[in-house]
Amino acid sequence: MKLWQTLLPCLAIFPGLTYGQANITRPLNYAVILFPSFQALDVFGPLDILNSLSMTYPLNLYILAETLEPVSTHHNMPAGPNSNVSESITPTHTFDNAPDDIEVLLVPGGVGTRAPAPALDAHVAFIKKTYPTLKYLITVCTGVGLVARTGILDGVRATGNKKAWAWVLAQSDKVHWVAEARWVQSGNIWTTSGISAGLDGMYNYVQTIYGEDVALTLANDLEYERELDWKHDPFSKLYNLTDPVHPN
Amino acid sequence: MKLWQTLLPCLAIFPGLTYGQANITRPLNYAVILFPSFQALDVFGPLDILNSLSMTYPLNLYILAETLEPVSTHHNMPAGPNSNVSESITPTHTFDNAPDDIEVLLVPGGVGTRAPAPALDAHVAFIKKTYPTLKYLITVCTGVGLVARTGILDGVRATGNKKAWAWVLAQSDKVHWVAEARWVQSGNIWTTSGISAGLDGMYNYVQTIYGEDVALTLANDLEYERELDWKHDPFSKLYNLTDPVHPN
Repeated sequence: MKLWQTLLPCLAIFPGLTYGQANITRPLNYAVILFPSFQALDVFGPLDILNSLSMTYPLNLYILAETLEPVSTHHNMPAGPNSNVSESITPTHTFDNAPDDIEVLLVPGGVGTRAPAPALDAHVAFIKKTYPTLKYLITVCTGVGLVARTGILDGVRATGNKKAWAWVLAQSDKVHWVAEARWVQSGNIWTTSGISAGLDGMYNYVQTIYGEDVALTLANDLEYERELDWKHDPFSKLYNLTDPVHPN
Repeated sequence: MKLWQTLLPCLAIFPGLTYGQANITRPLNYAVILFPSFQALDVFGPLDILNSLSMTYPLNLYILAETLEPVSTHHNMPAGPNSNVSESITPTHTFDNAPDDIEVLLVPGGVGTRAPAPALDAHVAFIKKTYPTLKYLITVCTGVGLVARTGILDGVRATGNKKAWAWVLAQSDKVHWVAEARWVQSGNIWTTSGISAGLDGMYNYVQTIYGEDVALTLANDLEYERELDWKHDPFSKLYNLTDPVHPN
């Protein structure tokens, strides 16, 4: 065995290199942004995949919010029943002290994305400020609305939640919205359809960045039957949605 | 309109009655138990469905753990890469001060279920103590192993994680383990296969308890294509699993 071969496993300790394999395109540092009334599965569908991926690839995850207080899925439903159901997640960093080495940013959706200004101004500003140094950006559900407001998606093909499609479109008329899509990959940006679609979008991201063998192994371990066709979207059909006419 | 009709919506405020509809079999109070190194999707797949259900039906959720300290998905992988990926959830109650009106208990799985005694003794004891007053018990993945240890599943048909099938079987030889199953309903107990199967199992629970219209509406809102056949399980085939021979 040659010296360089004995040193191969050590490559794993260097940021940006994959475990036991030199490939600097695979990212090390992931972050997710949270806001009050985020949708739980928007966050934990993709993160469960990352949690498992981190057992074979070195990954770091930063959980970002305005403060370090736990962030809750709870949202008030004045017209709804008298329920008390919520889960609270602990951030690891605030936007102000976020690490500057984030390579992949995950933006979830949920009822909270509809909060009127200035509730999400800090989130939108953080996405806008951070995007230029990101390798990849991933949105789930109505999270695409926060990114659309930054201008990052101007002229870019993107999708979002289908039940809230009208709201999604209203966030920007410069985005090339695609109605019939489980997810859309446009360059280094993945946007997914509503909630559960974050799983299929994240598996497609893993397939693209880490390879089909890695994505398939993860899906088998997590007992998930992936949707492999980004165009497969029964929900756009259910709501009879079509792409808006894009101004040229 | 008759007086009783005008009072119908008020029924929603009474525990055990469904929103706007008198049906005392539908539960109000749900709980999930957490332990270190739980699997995120085991918890948040089913809970995301409950979060959404709580917008039309009155529901309470208790998040139970040994202490009120946030509980982390993190697990040490001494042989794995140098990763730092985890999410921490805030419990609402400890086992010692848990409300005594829990009607539905959710037991997730994850690497943490393999912790050697006495790490999970309090969890197993709580499940055993609480089961007699539950309406329904739901397990995801290796969570079934904690329940199997209580004896509650003796003589009961049940399933669990397929990659960890040998470990599942080792938790009790008195359970009638079913290898080929996305989930198994046995009386008031739902046990599901690994991780992502918690989604299909929970939708089946909702379909059974709240009705197909409620389950379908939720799945459409959450953009999820449910597996409706409990016997559909490509992962038991992948691992070439068969049911153990049960002692009579």
